Amino acid sequence: MNGSELVSPIGVVHGTRTEVRDDLWDAERATIELDAAQFDDSALRGLETFSHVEVLFLMDRVDPAKIERGARHPRNETRWPEVGIFAQRGKNRPNRIGATVCRVLGVRGRFLDVQGLDAVDRTPVLDLKPWVAAFGPRGEVREPPWMGELMRHYWDE
Amino acid sequence: MNGSELVSPIGVVHGTRTEVRDDLWDAERATIELDAAQFDDSALRGLETFSHVEVLFLMDRVDPAKIERGARHPRNETRWPEVGIFAQRGKNRPNRIGATVCRVLGVRGRFLDVQGLDAVDRTPVLDLKPWVAAFGPRGEVREPPWMGELMRHYWDE
Repeated sequence: MNGSELVSPIGVVHGTRTEVRDDLWDAERATIELDAAQFDDSALRGLETFSHVEVLFLMDRVDPAKIERGARHPRNETRWPEVGIFAQRGKNRPNRIGATVCRVLGVRGRFLDVQGLDAVDRTPVLDLKPWVAAFGPRGEVREPPWMGELMRHYWDE
Repeated sequence: MNGSELVSPIGVVHGTRTEVRDDLWDAERATIELDAAQFDDSALRGLETFSHVEVLFLMDRVDPAKIERGARHPRNETRWPEVGIFAQRGKNRPNRIGATVCRVLGVRGRFLDVQGLDAVDRTPVLDLKPWVAAFGPRGEVREPPWMGELMRHYWDE
């Protein structure tokens, strides 16, 4: 079933964080620069009328040898249940794609300023989608208690 | 800045809708089958403890010649503003990646049953991430009025 497909980064993250860490991402400001060879100023036009953007990015600092394809304890914490890689959001995952909703600070031509993007400097960006409330979860949201613990300091203290 | 990267589908959508249409997706039930060559039952373990899953998929039915890299009127409706491809969620976009939050109906080994996935039958799947409330938008959400109009019948009547 599985032929490989090519994706091409549309741009790159310029950020202040150069090392991968697990927590305290929400104060991070970053700029996404669209590739000048592919895009002009029109590609981001109107994104400033949305409060948030979903950024899809390639976590290229992840060592392919560490990619998990089965189950593991999130963050190797044995007090949390061993769950499948597709039941957690850890970075060592097949295809190494991150998807994060962050705040739009502003658009300057091919440059998009954001806050709360959990991607390190020089990360390749694959797509940008405006956050649309109707595209959020429909119906009641439920998640297991361990996830709340894990997320406690992900964005802030 | 832009070397191409390979991604490999982790699985495929089995759905009842075989043609791309714009609206009324929320009643659609679909099953995502993980590729047996790459995964066993453990990869989805615990996903049933979440109410929703974010599905990243490759919209491979999109004609590459139709991919928009600048600005256009969403759905070619001239009553809506001409905005950049990254300020809308239309399918004719660079890298053709879809990202949709849908309901988890159940996990059966390598098979994940979902509702409200706006992907047609045989669509390649790139990633599955549990929906985590803390990964939603932080702070007040704002979007332009045209998007509310566009979404009016996207999920249901």
